[in-house]
Amino acid sequence: MNVNGKPYRTIWVKEGNERVIQIIDQRYLPHKFIIEDLKSVDDFAVAIKDMRVRGAGLIGAAAGFGMYIAVLNGNNLNEAGEKLKATRPTAVNLAWAIDRQLTAINSSKNLENKVKTALETAKNIADEDADFCKKLGNHGIKIIEKISKKKNGKVVNILTHCNAGWLAFVDYGSATAPIYAAHDKNIKVHVWVDETRPRNQGANLTAWELLQHGVPHTVISDNAGGHLMQRGMVDMCIVGTDRTTYTGDVANKIGTYLKALAAKDNNIPFYVALPSSSFDWKIKDGIKEIQIEQRGDEEVKYAQGLVDNQIKKVLLTPKNSPAANFAFDVTPRRLITGLITERGICNANEKSILNLYPEYRQQNG
Amino acid sequence: MNVNGKPYRTIWVKEGNERVIQIIDQRYLPHKFIIEDLKSVDDFAVAIKDMRVRGAGLIGAAAGFGMYIAVLNGNNLNEAGEKLKATRPTAVNLAWAIDRQLTAINSSKNLENKVKTALETAKNIADEDADFCKKLGNHGIKIIEKISKKKNGKVVNILTHCNAGWLAFVDYGSATAPIYAAHDKNIKVHVWVDETRPRNQGANLTAWELLQHGVPHTVISDNAGGHLMQRGMVDMCIVGTDRTTYTGDVANKIGTYLKALAAKDNNIPFYVALPSSSFDWKIKDGIKEIQIEQRGDEEVKYAQGLVDNQIKKVLLTPKNSPAANFAFDVTPRRLITGLITERGICNANEKSILNLYPEYRQQNG
Repeated sequence: MNVNGKPYRTIWVKEGNERVIQIIDQRYLPHKFIIEDLKSVDDFAVAIKDMRVRGAGLIGAAAGFGMYIAVLNGNNLNEAGEKLKATRPTAVNLAWAIDRQLTAINSSKNLENKVKTALETAKNIADEDADFCKKLGNHGIKIIEKISKKKNGKVVNILTHCNAGWLAFVDYGSATAPIYAAHDKNIKVHVWVDETRPRNQGANLTAWELLQHGVPHTVISDNAGGHLMQRGMVDMCIVGTDRTTYTGDVANKIGTYLKALAAKDNNIPFYVALPSSSFDWKIKDGIKEIQIEQRGDEEVKYAQGLVDNQIKKVLLTPKNSPAANFAFDVTPRRLITGLITERGICNANEKSILNLYPEYRQQNG
Repeated sequence: MNVNGKPYRTIWVKEGNERVIQIIDQRYLPHKFIIEDLKSVDDFAVAIKDMRVRGAGLIGAAAGFGMYIAVLNGNNLNEAGEKLKATRPTAVNLAWAIDRQLTAINSSKNLENKVKTALETAKNIADEDADFCKKLGNHGIKIIEKISKKKNGKVVNILTHCNAGWLAFVDYGSATAPIYAAHDKNIKVHVWVDETRPRNQGANLTAWELLQHGVPHTVISDNAGGHLMQRGMVDMCIVGTDRTTYTGDVANKIGTYLKALAAKDNNIPFYVALPSSSFDWKIKDGIKEIQIEQRGDEEVKYAQGLVDNQIKKVLLTPKNSPAANFAFDVTPRRLITGLITERGICNANEKSILNLYPEYRQQNG
């Protein structure tokens, strides 16, 4: 999507130099737009571990390019793969992309071919990610169009939580893909952006994305969504997901469940947008079976932002007060209106999901 | 309650000098504990306007002492009253305390008596506020005791939102009064403290109060409560209120509604604690009739905290992203288990409330 009027992806081969991969260092957004060169496997490992790149789709793409750089630099591929996998052990796309690269590279014969294959595969992984998001957007836009027509072309107000934007993927994003598609088609949309404490991905990343692409939006505290829905100021919610069970339970950034409850209480449609790579085809009961990661308490005790032109953290709580930091919650399927995928829109239940993805039917039969 | 092991109120006459009133400057909590001397009506006006003192009960007490200082300093009383009333025009207790003082002072005959009466009245307003909160606590503790027994003495986990603690009143607080009462009686309690963006009254004030008084607690982001309730980690919720209709609808800090929805969804009791001064005996439908104050967007765009030993604000959002800041929301009565008042506990409906407060029955008959 656009940054300063110019289209970007989140990761790309440097123009004129195929030995260098470039990324946007997301740690400094929205305050500083810094492009970083990655030239070694170590560069990639640090970039993923430090969350310079983050988000399921982007992590997968970064791993793909990381393995290409490994071949290019003559590294031991298994060691490179292990090093990259260790950076974010729970990221499904990371291991998947590395294994795909290893298979592709190992099937090529000489070094020249291996390099060529690795670059092609890395580009394919990135292109497919962008393509899935784009398709998802083309399905999701229909929901927005319908609401827009019902409102006689008046602004459609959409609430989102966290960042399921193009910064979390290679392009378009998941929750944002239908929004960008609608905006680009001149359908009037406005996005309520939950700030998404404690890491503020909404205030930092989603707001920045939308601002750069010119989509009208307003940042709100995570507390505000219920009130807005109660007063008729939200027409629909769209969020992303870190993992969705084949039965339709949605693990997503902490706080998603509260917004889904408010949407239900006010009869507002609540959609989850996901490329199919985010489905978990093995877990049946999201609330009982999905382990929720606990992160360091410093994310709750501090807030990071810009002060005196530097990015700093300020202490919010008493120094000695304990804090707890649950990273995700699970929204039960009964609160979800529908799932927007690259194959179309389905209900959040086993039957409807497996109708779209029949190849997984046997696994759960 | 205790600060550094010593009992405090939020406002008091300076020991050995009746010409000086002292307050805790709440702007610097939890990072700095600063006691301020107030000696003139202007001092009081600034203290209320700048939110050095805040909270319904404390604002009323401050206004009472402010009028005493006005008499003592020989100020024009009507002018002093108008000046103080203008500082927080929507605070009901402010106008009420000033009018009570004016009536009391005007019924006294000479200056000496007027000063004496004003001091007495100011002390009475403060004492009554503390007394109401204490009584409320003695009713509310029964709910905690019951849960504690049911759990065989295991820790009772209580979630609260914003600061309805002693810092918002003269002592004890509203939502915190039952908690302090239980803790002081050696009933094991633990408090989940919502940070309460955008102004962070939970992280700044509630956490500090509980820490100082030795009550076990954990600060969480506003997004976390639903997850905790879903996983059985919350036994009850208690919140305060800025205004509760005589029919039981509760206006309170933005985000309260979301927690009430989660409590309902998980069958967790959700209580609102209030001295009767917080009832609005005229408003029937809270959602339709209560106007929600919108505050400046800078509270959402920035977060305030301690950095380099200074209290500073950091920018969270892109500089040019708009933000909206709704200060309160309304929780409909259907989500509320009960109201804890100084006269006892009642259901959140007109009949039950007017049974406790029959003197208001005619007004709404």
